[in-house]
Amino acid sequence: MSCTETIPELDMFAQEEIDLAAELLDSVAAMSPDTNGVSRPAWSPKETEVLDYLAARAEAEGLAVWSDPLDNRLFSLPEDRHAPGYTLIGSHVDSVPVGGNFDGLAGVIAGLICLIHQRRKGARFSGPVRVIAMRGEESAWFGPCYTASRALTGGLDAEALGATHKGDARTLADHMADVGVDLAPVHAGRPLMDLSEIKEYLELHIEQGPLLLTDDRAAAVVTGIRGNIRLKEIVAHGEAGHSGAVPREYRRDPVMATAQLLSAMDALWAAEVSDGTDLVMTTGMIGTDPAHHAMARIPESVSFSFEARSQQATTLRAIEALVHSECEIVARERGVRFVFDEPVHTSEAFLDKNVLAALLAACEAQELPAETVPSGAGHDAAVFSQAGVPSGMLFVRNQNGSHNPHEAMEIDDMLCGARVFKRAAQALARG
Amino acid sequence: MSCTETIPELDMFAQEEIDLAAELLDSVAAMSPDTNGVSRPAWSPKETEVLDYLAARAEAEGLAVWSDPLDNRLFSLPEDRHAPGYTLIGSHVDSVPVGGNFDGLAGVIAGLICLIHQRRKGARFSGPVRVIAMRGEESAWFGPCYTASRALTGGLDAEALGATHKGDARTLADHMADVGVDLAPVHAGRPLMDLSEIKEYLELHIEQGPLLLTDDRAAAVVTGIRGNIRLKEIVAHGEAGHSGAVPREYRRDPVMATAQLLSAMDALWAAEVSDGTDLVMTTGMIGTDPAHHAMARIPESVSFSFEARSQQATTLRAIEALVHSECEIVARERGVRFVFDEPVHTSEAFLDKNVLAALLAACEAQELPAETVPSGAGHDAAVFSQAGVPSGMLFVRNQNGSHNPHEAMEIDDMLCGARVFKRAAQALARG
Repeated sequence: MSCTETIPELDMFAQEEIDLAAELLDSVAAMSPDTNGVSRPAWSPKETEVLDYLAARAEAEGLAVWSDPLDNRLFSLPEDRHAPGYTLIGSHVDSVPVGGNFDGLAGVIAGLICLIHQRRKGARFSGPVRVIAMRGEESAWFGPCYTASRALTGGLDAEALGATHKGDARTLADHMADVGVDLAPVHAGRPLMDLSEIKEYLELHIEQGPLLLTDDRAAAVVTGIRGNIRLKEIVAHGEAGHSGAVPREYRRDPVMATAQLLSAMDALWAAEVSDGTDLVMTTGMIGTDPAHHAMARIPESVSFSFEARSQQATTLRAIEALVHSECEIVARERGVRFVFDEPVHTSEAFLDKNVLAALLAACEAQELPAETVPSGAGHDAAVFSQAGVPSGMLFVRNQNGSHNPHEAMEIDDMLCGARVFKRAAQALARG
Repeated sequence: MSCTETIPELDMFAQEEIDLAAELLDSVAAMSPDTNGVSRPAWSPKETEVLDYLAARAEAEGLAVWSDPLDNRLFSLPEDRHAPGYTLIGSHVDSVPVGGNFDGLAGVIAGLICLIHQRRKGARFSGPVRVIAMRGEESAWFGPCYTASRALTGGLDAEALGATHKGDARTLADHMADVGVDLAPVHAGRPLMDLSEIKEYLELHIEQGPLLLTDDRAAAVVTGIRGNIRLKEIVAHGEAGHSGAVPREYRRDPVMATAQLLSAMDALWAAEVSDGTDLVMTTGMIGTDPAHHAMARIPESVSFSFEARSQQATTLRAIEALVHSECEIVARERGVRFVFDEPVHTSEAFLDKNVLAALLAACEAQELPAETVPSGAGHDAAVFSQAGVPSGMLFVRNQNGSHNPHEAMEIDDMLCGARVFKRAAQALARG
């Protein structure tokens, strides 16, 4: 459903504002083309160029614009520039390579349009509102993700700072220094902003799954952000052999072993889901070694990734234990050996109950059903939430998932979300 | 068990002959080193160099040596050079890259040592015996295999002749022309030798599986050569998505679908084997696309190979039908699509009953148990058999499989096989 039909006139954006939102999105896309889709590398000159562009446009609208110690850009009504106790609305401007234009950027533009709308009307919010356009959220460039929000909240650790760029192999710290960041307080783990001044952090983001599209909803409030357990590379080691010459009972076939393992995990997953457990699992990468594999050869090994996500930490712990116990069963049955690299755990993030209630109420005021969805992906909002900032998220409808050139969000849906934010911010400020 | 203990003295090789066999094997290995193991490319100057070396050593022993229209080399006692109705013993001298020294070469050296033994004793065989050292058996270089024996028997088709070399992309026909082959009769599909003159074709080969090693047998007679059905690339097409954002019920995950398919085929295989069916199946290659796959992304597709081998054509037909019907089940359940390339079928080869009986009798005379094994791999013997030449094969014990630098055959086991051939050839010649 659309949410533009019967909403209070005061919440509506003018056609010029709708056109401006589209123009900002299109202009940023045009400045960051990849072979297909867009590319805005984290902590790159291109990212700075996008931030400069948004700053210039915001200044032209009469907004206050400034930089923080990471050269993220902040925006507010001029009257709110130094006001304490503010609502922070934001997201990131970087993208994955060969990415879509809306992942991150839509949340920034939605916030900016709220400010511009009030500015053009000459109105203020019930309380001060700032918008932040952040850098470096995507893991595609260095490995670690949420690097700006982690640095802002004092949680960008030495391992992340030492992670190397996929392209030039220089560290994240080097790239941050390139854009003018003073790394001393980052290394020291000191927050780069007064977190106690942020009343709440709100982030609008395109949905990266199909739920809103399938249910024909323009937007929905995010209940929580799934944590995950990641095993980047499990290697099943068996024994190579001639495909015709080794009878079944002599085989130690790592591919058949891995098929058995994944099928067993898949059956466990199906059972959990039918019991109502929040859980997804994915083997995104699998492969025998192209340098040695052949159609007529039992391969000596196969590598694969395994990731599970859930809003319940207990579920993730159980799944991690189950992967190991299933591997043991398969290894014993088939004479193979599974070797694991270090697991990476990301905690689930609980979004704030009051913020969630305000967002749901704002949805209803927009004649949007007060629907909720979990977030399977991580977001900067999870970092703020874990740093103690009451946080909330809104997903807007989007086709074709994210991290690809085919992301397809309607401006109307984004602005519907912006209106929800505008109203929720007002309500939260009123307390 | 060894077979050198209590056999008739007349069958024994002299220590000098044993040393010569080892020296010939070592010298050929030394002339064809790869980064690890050996490399003797099919239809290459290196292959010619090896043939020239064997020819020179055989001439030095007083054997008759000549070339056929493929520049394969033939050897006999001088008295048998033009004798009709001969027993042909042979194998190939080419190897896979980073290969072992014994796959192919052992069969040639075993034959040569039989001739040299008789020559040194001044003895003859009951009937004429020729040894052939062939080229181009391995598929690793061009794709098609048994190229020399297929050309000799008139069965090297246009598709095989047009197959391109993995290295320089020139065709097999070009490479054959390079070593001096007149391609007109090959293209015409005319046999390049009078097949009716070959009373039987005997081939000794290292076992490429573990059976003889496990059962502690030096050699065993091959009952038949498994046929196979090969699907070089099956692609499971699903739908890409964010690993955290797409719930289970919305997924069209090609990796989980492929795991389910392979597990189903594996269960069918287990049932067939426990019913006594001769069957092996292998997925030697599997992979998501490294250009697009990621830990946090449901991949859009995964590719894999599937091969099944059996001595029963009916079994292979059933397995091929089962792969398709299982794919349909999985595709329906999971919303994926399996796309098959053209299947390649290779017929099973039945080895000759009389030759098999003679080989078994010769084994018993060597105090070897009269044991049989199937051959899972194809061999030049299958080509001669399919061309109507009564054929037999003997496997000798070998560690670590074949097509790798770790092939490990004992000279004693090879010579044990050579003695079986010498005796079997005598018996067959006597009729």
